[in-house]
Amino acid sequence: MYHDVVAQCAQSLGNLLTCLDKAEQHAAAKKFDAAVLMGSRLAPDMQPFTYQVQSACDYVKAAAACLSGQTPPKHEDNERTIDELRSRIRKTVAFAEGVAQPQYAGASERKVRLSWAPGKIIAGKDYLLQMTIPNVYFHIAMAYAILRHNGVDVGKQDYLGPINLVSD
Amino acid sequence: MYHDVVAQCAQSLGNLLTCLDKAEQHAAAKKFDAAVLMGSRLAPDMQPFTYQVQSACDYVKAAAACLSGQTPPKHEDNERTIDELRSRIRKTVAFAEGVAQPQYAGASERKVRLSWAPGKIIAGKDYLLQMTIPNVYFHIAMAYAILRHNGVDVGKQDYLGPINLVSD
Repeated sequence: MYHDVVAQCAQSLGNLLTCLDKAEQHAAAKKFDAAVLMGSRLAPDMQPFTYQVQSACDYVKAAAACLSGQTPPKHEDNERTIDELRSRIRKTVAFAEGVAQPQYAGASERKVRLSWAPGKIIAGKDYLLQMTIPNVYFHIAMAYAILRHNGVDVGKQDYLGPINLVSD
Repeated sequence: MYHDVVAQCAQSLGNLLTCLDKAEQHAAAKKFDAAVLMGSRLAPDMQPFTYQVQSACDYVKAAAACLSGQTPPKHEDNERTIDELRSRIRKTVAFAEGVAQPQYAGASERKVRLSWAPGKIIAGKDYLLQMTIPNVYFHIAMAYAILRHNGVDVGKQDYLGPINLVSD
């Protein structure tokens, strides 16, 4: 299940690519610089769009790495354009997709260290449930919300992506 | 894992109780009716705060019921006060907590029907990964975002709730 949950997190992160396309189109249609959207926030003391995307990426990357016993690759937070954010998402999704199911063996008992909690660890199962899932979807949803609030024509289906409905 | 994921979704939903307390305190301190926050939206064509809470509740309730082979209890969408939203959250969490781990046996192969997709089904595993998790956290995050955007002093820790960090 660890593999499947992380794979779905990565797929949900990839759904942001559709939102980025729509953000770019919106900026072009309204003749403003898409960088304005990248710097937009829901509150003055809240992080802007670019950070929300970077953070969603980092939680996906960390889950794929830490739960499979790897050190997460370093991704610098230096994106300045929509295209650079696309690349950040794509390299994150590629990294997560590159971790195969057997590599998650024993994930529930892995000890995960968090940079902001020195001397402490969290068990792999708690890390997945309490950190990965809530944080990945929080930051994807905040990125979505910033675009939605700024008039970009994104909808719930863009956020959810494909759903495996089959005929009964 | 089905039990644990739904239990965490229910706990994350319960974390909104802290946000409701802060919303009420903010309205009292600023001397406005808390119902204003309940009707607030991030965009004019987006659902308001009350709906976001109701919807988060419904996805938790549906997951607990459908993945354990039960019909979800009916909860009317008639909340008009913060206190009524608290009750809605509490009865949802109580319902989810009342479903014991063994009741999720066979959850991955259950056929789940969605009201908006007649004649179609989704397998329990896809339902958990593609519908429950993304939707529960989407609506919790939107409720949080609406309060945050309106100046309520909520922070990421309120959203995340307790984390099981232990000494190394």
